[in-house]
Amino acid sequence: MSARILDGKAIAREIRGELAEEVRQLKAHGVTPGLGVLLVGDHPASRSYVTAKEKASAEIGILSRETHLPASASVKEILSAVDAFNRAEDIHGILVQLPLPDSSMERDVLQALNPDKDVDGFHPVNVGKMVLGLPTFWPCTPHGILQMLKRSGIPVAGLHVLVMGRSNIVGRPLSILLSMKHALGNATVTVCHTGSRDLCRLARESDIIIVATGSPHTLTADMARPGAVVIDVGVNRVEDPTHPRGYRLIGDADYEDLLPRVAAITPVPGGVGPMTIAMLLHNTVQAARNQNRPKLER
Amino acid sequence: MSARILDGKAIAREIRGELAEEVRQLKAHGVTPGLGVLLVGDHPASRSYVTAKEKASAEIGILSRETHLPASASVKEILSAVDAFNRAEDIHGILVQLPLPDSSMERDVLQALNPDKDVDGFHPVNVGKMVLGLPTFWPCTPHGILQMLKRSGIPVAGLHVLVMGRSNIVGRPLSILLSMKHALGNATVTVCHTGSRDLCRLARESDIIIVATGSPHTLTADMARPGAVVIDVGVNRVEDPTHPRGYRLIGDADYEDLLPRVAAITPVPGGVGPMTIAMLLHNTVQAARNQNRPKLER
Repeated sequence: MSARILDGKAIAREIRGELAEEVRQLKAHGVTPGLGVLLVGDHPASRSYVTAKEKASAEIGILSRETHLPASASVKEILSAVDAFNRAEDIHGILVQLPLPDSSMERDVLQALNPDKDVDGFHPVNVGKMVLGLPTFWPCTPHGILQMLKRSGIPVAGLHVLVMGRSNIVGRPLSILLSMKHALGNATVTVCHTGSRDLCRLARESDIIIVATGSPHTLTADMARPGAVVIDVGVNRVEDPTHPRGYRLIGDADYEDLLPRVAAITPVPGGVGPMTIAMLLHNTVQAARNQNRPKLER
Repeated sequence: MSARILDGKAIAREIRGELAEEVRQLKAHGVTPGLGVLLVGDHPASRSYVTAKEKASAEIGILSRETHLPASASVKEILSAVDAFNRAEDIHGILVQLPLPDSSMERDVLQALNPDKDVDGFHPVNVGKMVLGLPTFWPCTPHGILQMLKRSGIPVAGLHVLVMGRSNIVGRPLSILLSMKHALGNATVTVCHTGSRDLCRLARESDIIIVATGSPHTLTADMARPGAVVIDVGVNRVEDPTHPRGYRLIGDADYEDLLPRVAAITPVPGGVGPMTIAMLLHNTVQAARNQNRPKLER
């Protein structure tokens, strides 16, 4: 028997369809959601992520405006671009594409965002609100994974979920959201990392395994029990001369080996990635609604 | 064989001794750490907690100033008292004793604190900074537990820690701090709750079990493996006519039954409680230092 493949592209399309309808309704009230995109430098992967996000925005009627600064931009220039988006009334959400060429600037830049426009959910006050269960923007990849599980008919409540990796962007917020008391949470959650002992046993006892380490072969086939659900957040380039681009993308899990063994698994690409973008659009629509309450209640 | 009893009173005394020395040094630079204490109403337990905190402050040379409002105080009156502490230059830390008589006010009141004076670490921006690994005040009970484990020679790195309970004040921040990469963390952490399946198996596989559910008998003797370490955060009153006050305090774990079985355990009272107060003092001294950098660097 082969695993069910969790089709992130299809689920993301469904969500984008719902959001397109929401945007139509907002526009009927004179509100066009606006996303400010800040790209610093010309890293090909960053460029391609930004393009994908702008394209997805346009498709559902979100206005996106890009500020592109050279890789040599000073922190002052970057903060000034953020400030312009903070003050622009037609921009409701701001996306700073990471990593910045100088990653030591990231903390100051992210903290400079108006938290009401922080659609990535990276500002400390929004992270805190998420942890405390207050209304805020949930970070896009974790929220995308929760939506994917829910819309695939895999309720996590009461199940044991192993989150491999504890990054600020994926593993940490995901583990928190999974264990909180709400409709998409209520799981029993274990967070592990490279220093964890007994990792194989832990993994084999888990109902759902989410791999977000950024390292290929983190989850091998022997680590998942038959019937487990595997969500693979990794996107790793490996050289492959048979591919037109000279490389192909693989995840953090051994997809081909796991496929015959587990109950369900996400592919890479086409799994978590499209969900991340869909939730960015979701947060942008939410931001536009939050910032236009009086107009919308008229 | 009987378990080693982790003596919170003794460890807290050691920490208070270190802090008294720090306060002496601050005073030599003209800085007296000041703690503003806000008590609303006359709940006996709250009154006794506040008194204990003020007494512990005085003993190490921290100035404490109490504002006591009647249980009938409006949210406006409470916010005005917070604001006075926010603006007082001789007050570096603010403690709002919880619960407030009207607990629906707590969110607004805690968010009104100047985050730089939020020595309980409950403000969303401080919770977010903690999660992101930025400098901030760690909440007192979780930090007290980490210090207690460290000072008892029980390093948690690589061990499997089960946190039972996911409150905003104890379980949630503790589980996050335990799994983060720092000198007191780096554990593999599972958070469980009343809806968790297979709780007995989970508990029996854990090296350290931290019970913070607020319910007596959450952890029974059969749930801990021989050699486990048990930290009991619970403080529950049970009627006991043989005691002078008519009640005695018990934790969330079955202490007497666990004692012959596990490697180490905290008593109730005298375990986690004194550590919480010690870390409140620690945060207040830290706040005084942060707010007087220019004076101290002279």
